[in-house]
Amino acid sequence: MNPLSPTLVIGTGLIGASIGQCLTKQGAEVFLADADHSHAVVAASRGAGTVASPRPETVQLVIVATPPSSAADAVIDALHRYPNAAVTDVASVKSSIETAVLAATANKPDDTRRYVGSHPMAGSQHAGPLTASPELFLDRTWVIVTRPDQSPVAVALLYALVSACEARPVEMDAATHDRAVAAVSHLPQLMASLTAARLLDDDPRDLTLAGQGVRDVTRIAASDTTMWRQIVAANTEAVRSQLQAVQKDLALLIEHLDDPASVEDVLKRGRAGAAALPGKHGKAMSDLESVVVQIPDTPGALARLFADIDRLGVNVEDLSIEHDPVREAGFLAVQVTPERAEPLAFALSESGWLVR
Amino acid sequence: MNPLSPTLVIGTGLIGASIGQCLTKQGAEVFLADADHSHAVVAASRGAGTVASPRPETVQLVIVATPPSSAADAVIDALHRYPNAAVTDVASVKSSIETAVLAATANKPDDTRRYVGSHPMAGSQHAGPLTASPELFLDRTWVIVTRPDQSPVAVALLYALVSACEARPVEMDAATHDRAVAAVSHLPQLMASLTAARLLDDDPRDLTLAGQGVRDVTRIAASDTTMWRQIVAANTEAVRSQLQAVQKDLALLIEHLDDPASVEDVLKRGRAGAAALPGKHGKAMSDLESVVVQIPDTPGALARLFADIDRLGVNVEDLSIEHDPVREAGFLAVQVTPERAEPLAFALSESGWLVR
Repeated sequence: MNPLSPTLVIGTGLIGASIGQCLTKQGAEVFLADADHSHAVVAASRGAGTVASPRPETVQLVIVATPPSSAADAVIDALHRYPNAAVTDVASVKSSIETAVLAATANKPDDTRRYVGSHPMAGSQHAGPLTASPELFLDRTWVIVTRPDQSPVAVALLYALVSACEARPVEMDAATHDRAVAAVSHLPQLMASLTAARLLDDDPRDLTLAGQGVRDVTRIAASDTTMWRQIVAANTEAVRSQLQAVQKDLALLIEHLDDPASVEDVLKRGRAGAAALPGKHGKAMSDLESVVVQIPDTPGALARLFADIDRLGVNVEDLSIEHDPVREAGFLAVQVTPERAEPLAFALSESGWLVR
Repeated sequence: MNPLSPTLVIGTGLIGASIGQCLTKQGAEVFLADADHSHAVVAASRGAGTVASPRPETVQLVIVATPPSSAADAVIDALHRYPNAAVTDVASVKSSIETAVLAATANKPDDTRRYVGSHPMAGSQHAGPLTASPELFLDRTWVIVTRPDQSPVAVALLYALVSACEARPVEMDAATHDRAVAAVSHLPQLMASLTAARLLDDDPRDLTLAGQGVRDVTRIAASDTTMWRQIVAANTEAVRSQLQAVQKDLALLIEHLDDPASVEDVLKRGRAGAAALPGKHGKAMSDLESVVVQIPDTPGALARLFADIDRLGVNVEDLSIEHDPVREAGFLAVQVTPERAEPLAFALSESGWLVR
């Protein structure tokens, strides 16, 4: 008996269709609905569920995956139509929706209790069910927005949903969530847009020099503009304070552009900021240990070293070159998790490598 | 007889070591030198060449791949030491190096003639020979900086170098190059740094919400700060004018942040700018044609469609969902190059698909 069966997904864009695929794979019955019927049909053809209407009283969970501006209304409507269901939404901004839902259900505490907002931190610049994938949420953070007045059963169903999508659940309140996403999502989106917008003023011939860097920085500028207009509108104050902080940094950078030390200070703070982002699975690079190996000056030496490391079943997390100020030799530092460092050093010595 | 043999690569970081690998693969003899001997040894162990000194008069080409601030001096020194070689550098800014080389060789026109600056538009946030790859330049633009006073033989050797690295040569003068890279490379770098620097002020718990978007925008912020300080210092005026244009856009965005139409205008210009970047192999998306296929509402329908398209050997360049305002059905628009459109539509019809 799958506690999520049946689930109704309202809105079958990238997020809704991908959730439908995850739940279908887990054996839940999933119903799909979309204001644009084409999307629901395409989502169904991708294995996200069935285009049909469930019996309202049987529905266990309703997932509202519509554009942010219509999410609150869709949640309120779903709480009314599906009297036994937990109802969640996946919009990128939480306080404004929560406020609207609480106001609309002020006289129906049982409806209020069944609403648990959420936000899967996954997506892409591609919209629509075509790019849906059941791996979209794998190891991604999925925020569950908690309040003291919620039904424990509804919260438990959200945990079951996050688990079915193989994401990592994180609980926080709506205000904390909105401040955090202004910093790690809404500001980067607008910075990508501002950077990409400048390209329009360039000589088209200049654009032939574009490399991977500018493509990465501007990739999310290709995102759906209607959705992002709605996201910014729902989180204006937090976004404004982020933009003003950048404005201050930018003014200083321009003022001191002739001073290499000032420019490098900005670059160094940027480098530290990029390093502050949690690594794979939330593991910070500082947790790693180095095994330092001397590299002979012969072609293929590194290939042989990595073949040996592979054979030992050790994951290399990072690499760097070590310097020896005395001897003229090449040294490679192989970064691995602490418990792997000593066995790796021993095994490589046994295989004839000079381990420092 | 390989015209590039022997080549001397001075500076065996990512770029120098990767060039060495390309030339070695093509059968040229490559000598490697680096102020940090460890780097040259590691580059040699990766198949980039030999750590030894060539006989000066035999050297055909010298490639200076040192940090930008020492490139001009290394070029001037190489023109003096290797009397028969064409000399190039791969630094990201060209006018300042050209000016220095022309000034230093003002009394030696034969030396001047042998200098041909260049700039391969490839790299990564990883520095050093460890991440070198002979595929680094594949299909990337490689600028050859031309002047009327150059030796045709030296220019021809540069074309041979670009060809050996499987890159696409583009000729331009130094000033045009520097304006272009300010727009498509130096501005995006600084915007990535400014965005990443903001993360330092955030609550570390907020960073757990970071998704792929902020990682992409800030990826190049992890680049080597010394190198970028030098690049900005060598191209200050062009960079300043780009930053000032962003400053103006940012001030307007903040001023009108409460107006969704203004915010969407920024987002739309960003989207258009991202689309203005040349696609794969310089092909713009607008050159493509659509084949529209009806999608049945059954699991696996799209998988069957793509299997059929694959079997026909057609490359799908892009995909989108088409809307039919009258009938409730799903339609998929498959974008292909114009010459493929009609044969694809015919073949899919023959296979039983409803093609609109």
